[in-house]
Amino acid sequence: MVQTVRIIGIDPGLRRCGWGVIDVTGSRLSFVASGVLMPDTTMELADRLVAIHNGINELLDRFRPDEAAVEETFVNAGARSALLLGQARGVVLMTPALRGTPVGEYAANLIKKSVVGTGHAEKEQIQAMVKILLPQANFKTADAADALAIAICHAHHRTMRKLAASA
Amino acid sequence: MVQTVRIIGIDPGLRRCGWGVIDVTGSRLSFVASGVLMPDTTMELADRLVAIHNGINELLDRFRPDEAAVEETFVNAGARSALLLGQARGVVLMTPALRGTPVGEYAANLIKKSVVGTGHAEKEQIQAMVKILLPQANFKTADAADALAIAICHAHHRTMRKLAASA
Repeated sequence: MVQTVRIIGIDPGLRRCGWGVIDVTGSRLSFVASGVLMPDTTMELADRLVAIHNGINELLDRFRPDEAAVEETFVNAGARSALLLGQARGVVLMTPALRGTPVGEYAANLIKKSVVGTGHAEKEQIQAMVKILLPQANFKTADAADALAIAICHAHHRTMRKLAASA
Repeated sequence: MVQTVRIIGIDPGLRRCGWGVIDVTGSRLSFVASGVLMPDTTMELADRLVAIHNGINELLDRFRPDEAAVEETFVNAGARSALLLGQARGVVLMTPALRGTPVGEYAANLIKKSVVGTGHAEKEQIQAMVKILLPQANFKTADAADALAIAICHAHHRTMRKLAASA
């Protein structure tokens, strides 16, 4: 019997945290839910980070994923932007790990390669491929599509790791 | 009667998180404790962030500070280092806020100015001044001294804010 594994993908950000939940049964993927957390940007930074932590905890309570996957944030901006983004990312990585949910990290170009077949895909290509791989997905934003792509990438790589381990 | 306010200062880092606790009664400062959290660097990033969160929570349980203060991390390194540091900083800011402890943020040069009188002080000058302002302080590392300096900076600025509010 093939077990179903539930994965949550998260695309971290201080203004918008995309999230997407999928089920993986063998090589079959199915869409569960997706959305975007948008902390109130008028709040102080520390409170915004609390909102991200609480928001992700609510998703973990609601969907009970077995594993989480987070994008290795792409840093082409300056050090100041990287610091801001890092703060959101730290909370996003920490929150599932605090509950004992394993967290995988994937570089942006590996995620694109897993989903589209090339490391240099555009946002639109990612959305189109996510829609093909998860026909029931009804994401409304690019952030949610990116989070689903992260979850799909984790689904591929966890299977490969398992095959490698059993070889 | 003058109330005593307890402040924890934290100097965030992925390898070393300095912390220092002081009591403030009117204009009188007194040393309570200081130290450094050093998460096991062989752990995965997410688990290291959990160790920082748990370590700070233990300090908050043990010392019950009324307020927390965190350094606005100085970014002169590249975007990659800033991202790494940001992750530790996000968890450090979020942890007291999650418990309802107010968190102040101070730029590195404001902290130096509050403690040494100039924004361009060396590590040794900061340690010497912290020792003069808190004679009982027995910090063993520069990280702990920096954290005490952050707490002292917050003590000065919260008093000024209070005076401004009552003027």
